[in-house]
Amino acid sequence: MAPKEDTKEKILSVGARIIHRKGYHYTGIQEILKAAGVPKGSFYFYFKNKEDFGLQVIDWFVRDYTEMLAAIYRKTAQQGPLQRLSAAMDGFIDFYEKIDFTCGCPVGNLAQEMGDLNEAFNRKLQQAVDKMVAFFAGFIREAREKGEIAADLDVDETARFIVSSWHGALIHMKISKGPEPLVNHKKFIFEKVLGVRE
Amino acid sequence: MAPKEDTKEKILSVGARIIHRKGYHYTGIQEILKAAGVPKGSFYFYFKNKEDFGLQVIDWFVRDYTEMLAAIYRKTAQQGPLQRLSAAMDGFIDFYEKIDFTCGCPVGNLAQEMGDLNEAFNRKLQQAVDKMVAFFAGFIREAREKGEIAADLDVDETARFIVSSWHGALIHMKISKGPEPLVNHKKFIFEKVLGVRE
Repeated sequence: MAPKEDTKEKILSVGARIIHRKGYHYTGIQEILKAAGVPKGSFYFYFKNKEDFGLQVIDWFVRDYTEMLAAIYRKTAQQGPLQRLSAAMDGFIDFYEKIDFTCGCPVGNLAQEMGDLNEAFNRKLQQAVDKMVAFFAGFIREAREKGEIAADLDVDETARFIVSSWHGALIHMKISKGPEPLVNHKKFIFEKVLGVRE
Repeated sequence: MAPKEDTKEKILSVGARIIHRKGYHYTGIQEILKAAGVPKGSFYFYFKNKEDFGLQVIDWFVRDYTEMLAAIYRKTAQQGPLQRLSAAMDGFIDFYEKIDFTCGCPVGNLAQEMGDLNEAFNRKLQQAVDKMVAFFAGFIREAREKGEIAADLDVDETARFIVSSWHGALIHMKISKGPEPLVNHKKFIFEKVLGVRE
């Protein structure tokens, strides 16, 4: 990576972490630059404005999330589809436990914050949600093919419900500051939606 | 209502609508005062600062939401608990259709926006969530007593899952700008969680 790209990546990763914690509007460019230790000129060399930066932060989140999912995918390669789905959910619960049940999902957060305000954000966020849905759909499709869940369960609808209800559980986690909403989510998805006991 | 209370209520209701649409941080006091047509002095006569105003806006949202729920409750008094739950969900889907699938739930929005930033907001938001949970729990408890749903379904956990997954469906609605996430939520809650076909 060239030094210039290092600087851009640094602004993006530092900015992404602040936005994840505080939201888009509450995060100032000055704050990001100070935390990243780069001068103001650097920001405007790489980004047209805050919106352009925000859009590239969504891409950064998607890359980060995709790596996280790929790691879970590799780690669980020897397991069955429902075990892998369970491991993925546990992996996310562990992640939030490590950060004291704060922040929530950056994609869900930005969808909520920007959904009515910025169409360009919206399009990127919808693509990000669709990627999450596709990840879960893969496990559900395989589980259905293997007869581990009911044959009449619609793969796409089920995956969409898992992701949307997960985003809601994360909101409740942010105010309760405990794992209960996430654990309750997993319980209902497995026992009721998929109809299996772990 | 005395004239002074009229002014306070006007600032709160106008401010609540703007915050519902744009979020807390993105809403300026000046913008609220301009929309409400009241001078700056009035704001600081009724509210210590923006935070104090925000906390009172949450109370306003809870009153507004409680009235909405009470209206559904009265209107469906002759129906069974699952029909009433269904009517409540349909009522909310209709509400969001009328506002072009924008805004989302003000309580869910503020929980997401403020959950890590302000403990006083958090406490009030948790109480607001608990009220919603209690409303849905009432129908589920009655349905269970009447044998309309499985006897082993935990009333509180089920109601919590309905509300948290609803908040997530609203987030997805904000980016898809269509009813699908809400309709999908209702379908999974009835068919899978409650185990009934409407």
